[in-house]
Amino acid sequence: MTSTSPAITPERLESLFRPRSVALVGAADKSAFSRLAYDNLVEFGFTDRTFLVNRRGAPTHGRPTVTSCAEIGEPVDVAFLMVPQAGMPEALSDAAAAGIRNAVVLSSGYAEAGEAGRAAQDELVAHALSLDMVLLGPNQLGFANITAQVPITCVPGLPRTPGPVALLSQSGASSGAMVEFAGAAGIGLSLMVTLGNEAMVTAGHVLDFLVDDDATRAVAIFAETVRDPDAFRRAARRAGDAGKAVVVLKAGSSALAARTAAAHTGALVGDDAVIDAVFADLGIIRVDCIEDMLITAGATAHMGRLQRPGIGVVSISGGACDIVADRAKDVGMELPELAAETRDAVVAVMPDYGTVQNPLDVTGAAILDPSVFTRTIAAVSADPSVGAVAVVNSLPWTGEGPYSGQVFVDAIGAGIAQAGCPVAYVNQVLAPITDRTREVLSAGGVPYAIPGLRQAVVALRNVAWWSQASRLTAGPSAVDVPERSACRGAWSEPAARRLLAAAGVPVVPGELVGTADEAVAAASRIGGPVACKLVSPDVLHKSGVGGVVLGVQGDDAVRAAHSAVTLAAAAVPGARVTGVLVSPMRRGGTELLVGVVRDPQWGPILAVAFGGALVEVLGDSVLSPLPVSPERAAAMLRRLRGAAVLDGVRGAAPVDVDAVAAVVARVGDLALALGDELESLEINPLRVDGSAVEALDAVVTWRDAS
Amino acid sequence: MTSTSPAITPERLESLFRPRSVALVGAADKSAFSRLAYDNLVEFGFTDRTFLVNRRGAPTHGRPTVTSCAEIGEPVDVAFLMVPQAGMPEALSDAAAAGIRNAVVLSSGYAEAGEAGRAAQDELVAHALSLDMVLLGPNQLGFANITAQVPITCVPGLPRTPGPVALLSQSGASSGAMVEFAGAAGIGLSLMVTLGNEAMVTAGHVLDFLVDDDATRAVAIFAETVRDPDAFRRAARRAGDAGKAVVVLKAGSSALAARTAAAHTGALVGDDAVIDAVFADLGIIRVDCIEDMLITAGATAHMGRLQRPGIGVVSISGGACDIVADRAKDVGMELPELAAETRDAVVAVMPDYGTVQNPLDVTGAAILDPSVFTRTIAAVSADPSVGAVAVVNSLPWTGEGPYSGQVFVDAIGAGIAQAGCPVAYVNQVLAPITDRTREVLSAGGVPYAIPGLRQAVVALRNVAWWSQASRLTAGPSAVDVPERSACRGAWSEPAARRLLAAAGVPVVPGELVGTADEAVAAASRIGGPVACKLVSPDVLHKSGVGGVVLGVQGDDAVRAAHSAVTLAAAAVPGARVTGVLVSPMRRGGTELLVGVVRDPQWGPILAVAFGGALVEVLGDSVLSPLPVSPERAAAMLRRLRGAAVLDGVRGAAPVDVDAVAAVVARVGDLALALGDELESLEINPLRVDGSAVEALDAVVTWRDAS
Repeated sequence: MTSTSPAITPERLESLFRPRSVALVGAADKSAFSRLAYDNLVEFGFTDRTFLVNRRGAPTHGRPTVTSCAEIGEPVDVAFLMVPQAGMPEALSDAAAAGIRNAVVLSSGYAEAGEAGRAAQDELVAHALSLDMVLLGPNQLGFANITAQVPITCVPGLPRTPGPVALLSQSGASSGAMVEFAGAAGIGLSLMVTLGNEAMVTAGHVLDFLVDDDATRAVAIFAETVRDPDAFRRAARRAGDAGKAVVVLKAGSSALAARTAAAHTGALVGDDAVIDAVFADLGIIRVDCIEDMLITAGATAHMGRLQRPGIGVVSISGGACDIVADRAKDVGMELPELAAETRDAVVAVMPDYGTVQNPLDVTGAAILDPSVFTRTIAAVSADPSVGAVAVVNSLPWTGEGPYSGQVFVDAIGAGIAQAGCPVAYVNQVLAPITDRTREVLSAGGVPYAIPGLRQAVVALRNVAWWSQASRLTAGPSAVDVPERSACRGAWSEPAARRLLAAAGVPVVPGELVGTADEAVAAASRIGGPVACKLVSPDVLHKSGVGGVVLGVQGDDAVRAAHSAVTLAAAAVPGARVTGVLVSPMRRGGTELLVGVVRDPQWGPILAVAFGGALVEVLGDSVLSPLPVSPERAAAMLRRLRGAAVLDGVRGAAPVDVDAVAAVVARVGDLALALGDELESLEINPLRVDGSAVEALDAVVTWRDAS
Repeated sequence: MTSTSPAITPERLESLFRPRSVALVGAADKSAFSRLAYDNLVEFGFTDRTFLVNRRGAPTHGRPTVTSCAEIGEPVDVAFLMVPQAGMPEALSDAAAAGIRNAVVLSSGYAEAGEAGRAAQDELVAHALSLDMVLLGPNQLGFANITAQVPITCVPGLPRTPGPVALLSQSGASSGAMVEFAGAAGIGLSLMVTLGNEAMVTAGHVLDFLVDDDATRAVAIFAETVRDPDAFRRAARRAGDAGKAVVVLKAGSSALAARTAAAHTGALVGDDAVIDAVFADLGIIRVDCIEDMLITAGATAHMGRLQRPGIGVVSISGGACDIVADRAKDVGMELPELAAETRDAVVAVMPDYGTVQNPLDVTGAAILDPSVFTRTIAAVSADPSVGAVAVVNSLPWTGEGPYSGQVFVDAIGAGIAQAGCPVAYVNQVLAPITDRTREVLSAGGVPYAIPGLRQAVVALRNVAWWSQASRLTAGPSAVDVPERSACRGAWSEPAARRLLAAAGVPVVPGELVGTADEAVAAASRIGGPVACKLVSPDVLHKSGVGGVVLGVQGDDAVRAAHSAVTLAAAAVPGARVTGVLVSPMRRGGTELLVGVVRDPQWGPILAVAFGGALVEVLGDSVLSPLPVSPERAAAMLRRLRGAAVLDGVRGAAPVDVDAVAAVVARVGDLALALGDELESLEINPLRVDGSAVEALDAVVTWRDAS
């Protein structure tokens, strides 16, 4: 569906996003889209660099027009194409003939509209490629470069004052609301791009361009799908290296949303947990509403990376302190205890009846003496565990003349000036940041405010997480991969065992035997109760057909079990029996699952989970793309909801997490070493008893060669 | 801590909240609080019914003053007391002497400020009671009756236009922000009350008053603790019966918040899961931020109870549809599939490329023909599964003159006029609802709008939940409770078993034996493997000391087990041995936990959970206050995160939920019948195998008589 062109480099996108001039092709007084686009160009004073193309040459928007781009007669960088689908190829050719190298395609009815539309889109892309044109869209509403003051878009209500946040949206219809909220929340925009179907230019390309854009310090993306995983991944890594946060509102976390998105953009929506894992790996902040997306992006742009994850909170309201503490617990914002020296410094400022803790309620004392704000901000910001301070106080958004609370804003501003770390002024509720608000903040020397307590907790948690997120620098460790053949379908357990053992993954001992007598002899060598399992290349789910008998003890029992599992193969007509695997029984310990599956978009994904039916039902698993270092594997295990089990519950011995993590990482390295042929590799259960780790069963499947 | 007076009835609160006149005691130009309060009175035109009391008789706020209430010389209903703590008793006496029956006490330093403050508060209350005065506060900022246009409060920025939502806040400092947000979100207020320490008038009293207040259709409460559980519960039930929603932002869900709240209000914060259960039982909507509290309260006030829980969504933006679907899944808002007739009606309106589903993206077709909005709203609102419709479209909050999107608002208004159920107009982002917005809505005939997509999903989920929440009408069933003595400490397992069996709870068979020979005989009568358990009044956790041996088979093994569990009593010095309990072993099935514990605030609370260490770690339990009907018990079991286990996983037989629910309900009825003496009653495990339900072990503890 996606035809990416190697030609779409950041340099190449310069002429698209910073054009010197634009042709509005399909300009018409009757067209609402044409009017909206032209109004924007007027508003930004770009009309002298705008050329209107109307097929009939009729005067439009009160200006003369030309009937084709070729008629313009001077260099134009971008054609904004509003013509119907049928006329699009000709319009592209005309623009190309006039030397225009960038097409912004508004029209819809392409890939989002089913099979025929998809074919039309493929043709459109092929045509653009043949003309060496870069194509934004189709099915989008254009872009606005606020930094360069160039609006080539039908989205109304654009801000004139630029700011540090770039906004990309696959949805054109939602972009207006996002732009509006950015304005209401006081978040300045550098570039706004509606991406539409991303037939050629994708989010990854634009992100890559923005890494080099000095005006952009954070990127907010509303996406229903990631159409170019590789380009997106590369660009996200570059953004991370450049210290620019990428904040994504990725729709499609519900099955229904996946259906809606399909209807909307004709895009396949990937599996949501995989997206979570991949984004986390890339240091991408994922949010779940427009407000959090923009406020978080603004916070990263203004605050940068924090030195420490802890957030100190100073508030005029005890109620606000309570709400912050509750929400912090819910979303995982760290509220460190204040150090002894911080407490001493705060005690010196606060009245006796105040309680010195974090969040810190400065009490009515700050009403009587606003400098309590100044001094507590200075003290808390100097705490060795605090990476940023949030100061909760109200802010006006309407009214004129002197602001009755200015003295508090001034005192907070003075605290910010002395602070040892970034400080955000937080309004208790999500009220807009208007010119009035900015006036008050500016008079008090406050550079930055977040509207809304809930929003601030989410944003600061996100900033703190992003500050700590470091991409994996170490590559996978080398593992021994034995020579192998027949890499298709599913491998038998002994084959999977050999593969794991060769790679250094501990596997429970086992003997592959033929006859019942051999089974008895093997069981006797092993000693104690054993497990007998059918080995057949044709039976994948052996326990489902009675191909596994556990806890077998005594010669007669072993013979009976050998007979039973061998007969079980009959459940699969024509199944061959390779033999019977005899292994010692293990008791106690904790059973985990470690698996690698190949995601069609994002490649091999490692999963860890607890074994057991109930946990399966509870869906308690943690995913990560590969490679996974032992340290990261340990962090994954710790993130399981039932992680407390690892510390030992009801008197059980604690699990040696480092030992398990080393095995988990090795399984991931093995999967990577096996390359693209591997479809899945799963150890279930991986038994852990203290520091003894052992794979009790394993399945390996390969991609179909076809 | 709380001294409630039986005198605080709704009738009694009339003169407090609808006063004819007020005395501002402690009025002073230098006092910021006095200025704020007086400014409000001026703003509301209440000054001719305001009397300023200044100890020195100095002209204040440009007006003459009196030196005591007694000097006023005409009837006054409320004294707003801003005097320091030391002068408070005298001020109360003075007000009472002047015939004033209501005191609104601003001063702090009472129960929120430690032991001495608590004593001062107790004295204050005793004094007020002796004067037959009703006391609001202390440590609060007053109230404003917007309906009656009486502001007796220091909270600035009050709205003048009344509305249907009453706002109660324990926190004075946060109330200003809440009032501000209500204004920004277009939510009109009837009464705003800051509650402070609730030394006499509590949230329950005010809620009770509001049930009878015609102007109030919903009540929003910000509380750090519920100080009067019984009054609150009664009032909440009355509010439910009156069709008035109660929406509570209850802080203290985190341990840290509990600490912060303690520092702030001197209140004990109850266990959060219990609060959740009690609120759910009372039909109280619990929210977690100020925005959701006010928007939800506004939604219930405007929409009333829905006939059906399903929400239909009609949106101009596919992106918005995706976000709604995702958030709906997260918070549990029901998005029903559209019925065939609805789909037909929508198909007739929509363009070919649109997808007919819920949420419904009306696509750009509605831009070309706004009546697409009208007709799809009418169609979706007529769907048999839809109880309310949310229409997502943008709204302006700034600007003047004709609104370019008015034609869409008009079309939506026309759809609302034809709709078969309540409709909410939803703005995509949380931007304010200003006069400009109201003008546009009003011109289009749109009565009600919710700002923000995320907020709308939460609010509509809440309205739908509240619409279905019905309070329990049936009382508990009668259960047989045997004569009992020694109801203190913990009972032995045989005593607990007898109690359960007498009440009709199925219990695994068991024989209490003395000697090893008797144990052998019992095991032989039972047949198969048995469990042997120590019975001792002095050993509560018998398995912890080796007092339980499971899976015992054969005479020798029974003797050994008898000996082992008897010897285990030695682990507790001086422990008496009553005997050994011999029971048949049970295998397979699902193990549940059913327990009742007494909450100090809310009384007996029933809990259901799965057995097993991992589930314990995962905290998968569901609580409810008593009584619990079998139907409710079944619903509780279905709400367990691991509920899918009940349907049978990995080939296990499904659990007969009705059979289990009947036993769970009976356990609850027994606990109620046992009355206040019972501290806890726990069955763990309650084994379920298909429809066979059996208590395998039980513990009963009693409250200490002291």
